[in-house]
This record gives sequence, C-alpha cells and structure tokens, in this order.
Amino acid sequence: MKTLFIIAIALALLTTSCMENKSENKETKLQAIFPKGNLGPAENFTGKAWATGLVANDSMYNTLVGNVFFEPGARSNWHTHPAGQILIITDGVGYHQIKGQPRQTIKKGDVVKCPPNVLHWHGASPDTGMYQMYILPKTEKGIVTWLQKVTDEEYNSDK
Amino acid sequence: MKTLFIIAIALALLTTSCMENKSENKETKLQAIFPKGNLGPAENFTGKAWATGLVANDSMYNTLVGNVFFEPGARSNWHTHPAGQILIITDGVGYHQIKGQPRQTIKKGDVVKCPPNVLHWHGASPDTGMYQMYILPKTEKGIVTWLQKVTDEEYNSDK
Repeated sequence: MKTLFIIAIALALLTTSCMENKSENKETKLQAIFPKGNLGPAENFTGKAWATGLVANDSMYNTLVGNVFFEPGARSNWHTHPAGQILIITDGVGYHQIKGQPRQTIKKGDVVKCPPNVLHWHGASPDTGMYQMYILPKTEKGIVTWLQKVTDEEYNSDK
Repeated sequence: MKTLFIIAIALALLTTSCMENKSENKETKLQAIFPKGNLGPAENFTGKAWATGLVANDSMYNTLVGNVFFEPGARSNWHTHPAGQILIITDGVGYHQIKGQPRQTIKKGDVVKCPPNVLHWHGASPDTGMYQMYILPKTEKGIVTWLQKVTDEEYNSDK
C-alpha cells in the first residue's frame, strides 16, 4: 500500500511537470529578437507599440532600421515616408493598409512594401501581437510624416 | 500486483512523453522566420549556407534584403559591397570579420555594419548555426564582389 502511495505521488508530480512544460511553450509563442525598447508616443500610436532603433541614420548607408512590437490591438497613425518603407514581420499577426486599398493581414515571415509618399498604417491584430522590423531607404529624402489616428472603424474593417 | 504493473507502465509512458517534449524544445532552439531557400554556390561559400531573397532590387527602394542560414562551420568567402552592408542576426551564433581587424563573435539581436568597399566575411560558429538578414543599400552602386575563400586558419583565429 505504501508503494502504491509513493507511485501515485510520483505520477502526480510527473504529470504536473509535463503540463507546466507545455504551458511554458504556449506563453513563449511569440519570439522577441531585440530589446523591447521605448513606448511609442500616444500622438502617433493607438495602444502600446514598443520601438527599438537598430541602425541610426547616417550619410554612409542612408538607411534607418528598427523594430516595433505592437501589443494586440495597437497600431500606428496613418503616415507617409518620402522614400517608402519595407516591413519585415518576424513574429505574430498584424495588419497593413494602404489608403484606398483593403486591409491586408500580415504574419511571421511576410515582407510588405509601401511606396514613397503613400498613406499607410500598420499594427497588430486584435488578439495576437506583432513583431516587425522596418527599413527606411534613401533617408536623405526624409523619414516620416505623421497624420491622423486610425479609427476603430478603419481598424476593424477588412474592406 | 496487477495495479502496480499498470501504474509502472503509465509512469514509463509519461516519462517518455516528457522526455520527447524536452528534446523537441532543444532541437527547435534556433527559430527560422523565413523559408530555408537555396544552397549558396560552393564557389562563394564554405559549408552549407541557405539563402532566401526577401526584397528584390528595384529603382524605387534601391535596397536588396535577404536571409541566410549558415549551418555550423559554414561561412562566406571574403567579399566587398560597393555601398556597404548591414547584417541583422535573428538567431544563433556566428562570426564577422573585417580585413585587418579581429574576428567578432555575433549572436541573436546583434546588428553589424560593414562600410563600402571594405573586405569582410561572415558565417556561423563551429557549433551553432546562424540566421542573418542582410540589407544592401544604394544598390545603384552595385551589389557584391566575391573574392577568395576564408581559410580554416582565418576562420579559427580570433586575432
């Protein structure tokens, strides 16, 4: 009887250990590559978007690179880049929309381009965050012009 | 006795399942973001380096972006870029060396810049592979000039 009791305890411990292991996997599903960085300013973002600079602007490369982590539901304002922008999604699920076009769903491994001076916004999906790197080429032409907020209606419309 | 036997079998199965779970975690330690792509040509690489294009060259962005996965021990030849190169390490551990400077160890989250027309090579460490994105700015100046192989002596020297 004592043996049975010891075995039962061992079984219970082992099961708990297995379950914890699986739950850890689920929680760490989105993979951060870079430090979280600083919270993007409320005047340019809705919700929490964390930004880290990776390559500062200089006259040798004329290329600005950084990472943004959008928490679920977070998004940028509408904005334009004088020389366009390249987005590389490294984890999660989000949205990208060019003014006048349907909202696009984007996810880990996707690459999105937005041409010069074209109005666009990007952000996370409502339920899953999104890690995205941005590349701004030809920075001698300028960086970004921030415009109006993306309304809830715009965010939620897939038209 | 029969109960004891059944419990012993259950314990054995549970232990195996736990071990498999842990071993899976170990194997998937390096995170691929993009498809594996194509094997880099033997005349430009030592060992296996898998390359995927992410942004093709065009006159709008003049920026070439791609991903390379270097298997452990794999590395590029010495080479130069007419407008320099930005490397972003998304997982693993590797090396980067600029001619005349000590070999640098680079790892997940690191960003490395190599100036225009400067001789360099990059690759994985001997024991751990490396996922790296490359960004080539100002492609109107050209892409790459491939040169000689990195010898085992050069690869193994941290001087």
